[in-house]
Amino acid sequence: MVGTGLIGGSIGLALRRRGWLVSGSDQDPARVARAVELGAVDVVGVDPEAEITFLATPVRSVAASATWALANTKGLVTDVGSVKGSIVEAVADARFIGGHPMAGSELEGIEGADADLFAGAVWVLTPTPATDDANLRALRSVILDLGADVVALTPEHHDALVAVVSHVPHLTAASLMRLADERGTEHRALLRLAAGGFRDMTRIASGHPGIWPDICAENRIAIVDVLDGLVASLREVRAIVAGDDRDGLLALLEQARAARANLPSRLSGIGDLCEIRIPVPDRAGVLAEVTTLAGRLDVNIADLEIAHSSEGEQGVLILLVEAAAADRLRAGLVEHHFRPAVLPLD
Amino acid sequence: MVGTGLIGGSIGLALRRRGWLVSGSDQDPARVARAVELGAVDVVGVDPEAEITFLATPVRSVAASATWALANTKGLVTDVGSVKGSIVEAVADARFIGGHPMAGSELEGIEGADADLFAGAVWVLTPTPATDDANLRALRSVILDLGADVVALTPEHHDALVAVVSHVPHLTAASLMRLADERGTEHRALLRLAAGGFRDMTRIASGHPGIWPDICAENRIAIVDVLDGLVASLREVRAIVAGDDRDGLLALLEQARAARANLPSRLSGIGDLCEIRIPVPDRAGVLAEVTTLAGRLDVNIADLEIAHSSEGEQGVLILLVEAAAADRLRAGLVEHHFRPAVLPLD
Repeated sequence: MVGTGLIGGSIGLALRRRGWLVSGSDQDPARVARAVELGAVDVVGVDPEAEITFLATPVRSVAASATWALANTKGLVTDVGSVKGSIVEAVADARFIGGHPMAGSELEGIEGADADLFAGAVWVLTPTPATDDANLRALRSVILDLGADVVALTPEHHDALVAVVSHVPHLTAASLMRLADERGTEHRALLRLAAGGFRDMTRIASGHPGIWPDICAENRIAIVDVLDGLVASLREVRAIVAGDDRDGLLALLEQARAARANLPSRLSGIGDLCEIRIPVPDRAGVLAEVTTLAGRLDVNIADLEIAHSSEGEQGVLILLVEAAAADRLRAGLVEHHFRPAVLPLD
Repeated sequence: MVGTGLIGGSIGLALRRRGWLVSGSDQDPARVARAVELGAVDVVGVDPEAEITFLATPVRSVAASATWALANTKGLVTDVGSVKGSIVEAVADARFIGGHPMAGSELEGIEGADADLFAGAVWVLTPTPATDDANLRALRSVILDLGADVVALTPEHHDALVAVVSHVPHLTAASLMRLADERGTEHRALLRLAAGGFRDMTRIASGHPGIWPDICAENRIAIVDVLDGLVASLREVRAIVAGDDRDGLLALLEQARAARANLPSRLSGIGDLCEIRIPVPDRAGVLAEVTTLAGRLDVNIADLEIAHSSEGEQGVLILLVEAAAADRLRAGLVEHHFRPAVLPLD
């Protein structure tokens, strides 16, 4: 564990509970000492024999930390940064897999660490064609064991999506809060009127700002694009309100309501499963390709294994997926020139 | 109770629990019958002798309902609409007091009614110079008894504030949800990545859109003004992100964070009290003036009474307020040509 703050500490607690030996380091010796006290780390230091090194350091320093960890440890290396494109590009290595657990807490630092932080959360992995299949499978299974849902996405895809569901919402919450604050200077009563809805909307603005300059710098293009989309959307709303366009307003709010109702539940609770068998060439990166395709199509992979053929040039990738989503994934695979076979489980 | 949906039903439940006899009517006979079944209403119909008539009907119909209720009942009349200016202007009567309980539920209709809906919530009243003091005192004490904090504001002030803390946040949540939905059409995975913060921010977009065309029509000017402010704020954020202005971003997020931390707690928990005595002329509307001044200054009034002098032309208004806020209110009163005396309680 490199970095023993909220996320690093939580991973440490969760891994130790599952019987792993966790070595940990941190730029701040007091923090790693506290991580030991709290039971998130067994041993201070970096273990060259570590099977997995988790980098839970600020986004800006991940690439350098990864390069160092790849040179100084034998196992696979992953990170937890909120932006993936620049990091994965800078660290092209078969042993490195970008990651992003989409879980947080209003608590801060190692004191907020929680072994259950990832239960039911989505943990994105961003394998590339350079990624070693065995490493991806190993990391995937450790993360599933922490209770998270693994979603594989390309780094670029991840960054575009988090701009929409995380980065711009955060900046918007801050903007709403500032607006209320500025108008509240004249009107102290305003803040008292801020009821549940407003509190919910601005909760994420209560976090520490320190991580955001890096995130905004690393994901600048996607964030600016989404901000432009939001401003255009709000100007449309303004025109509808100014013009008293009742039908337009209802249509817009109905669309939002339906979309909100369709948000997938956090606890995925995969239903009936079926098996998809895919003959695959024995080359690196095929697992990254198939899993990121499943991620893009929002198909949950409950389990996967690779059966190698005796000749060693062709294998069979066996996926267990939700039966309801199997056709979607099969169609996507066919489009990508795979020849999948779908077999019901019973 | 005129209108026995979520809010009307909740008021009925809360009043009955406190020993009131509640008569109720609704355009939909099935709904009022259900309100009787659920214990929110004792008797179906409108009681001409009712001490208080609560109008819990859609914003658009409140003014007509109020005029009807004033003509057909003897007591005071109040409403629960989310916009106050147009209603209060249309119903200028000493027996009418505009109201807005700032509480809601994700549940809908009478089935979601809850006797505790208003516990700890803010309930705005919008008295005017036309409002009878005794009516304002009576209504205020009933609402406090339901567990709500009463904040008195002018109708115009109320409308400007709710545009900031309620109406525009709602429209913004819908815009964020639509944006995610539109980008999610290409990228199904997007919605799965929507973690806690995004869910919190868009929760209010899950409500029924039906009430919003009226609200937006009635409060159009304030809403458009706040939308303009939000768009300007988001464009500022966009420039900061596009220009990688780290210090600008930190300053902006720090302002938002500090403002979020300063949101008054919902459960006001008034601390030490002190008494403010204000000689007041014996004319209507003085209580509206003093209480809306306290509302604007965010001074909680724990209790109030009017001691009339024997001559009958001058009285003394006695307020119990938070000691910490007494100086603020005294200064405001002096500015408004009152001569308050602040007396510590002990």
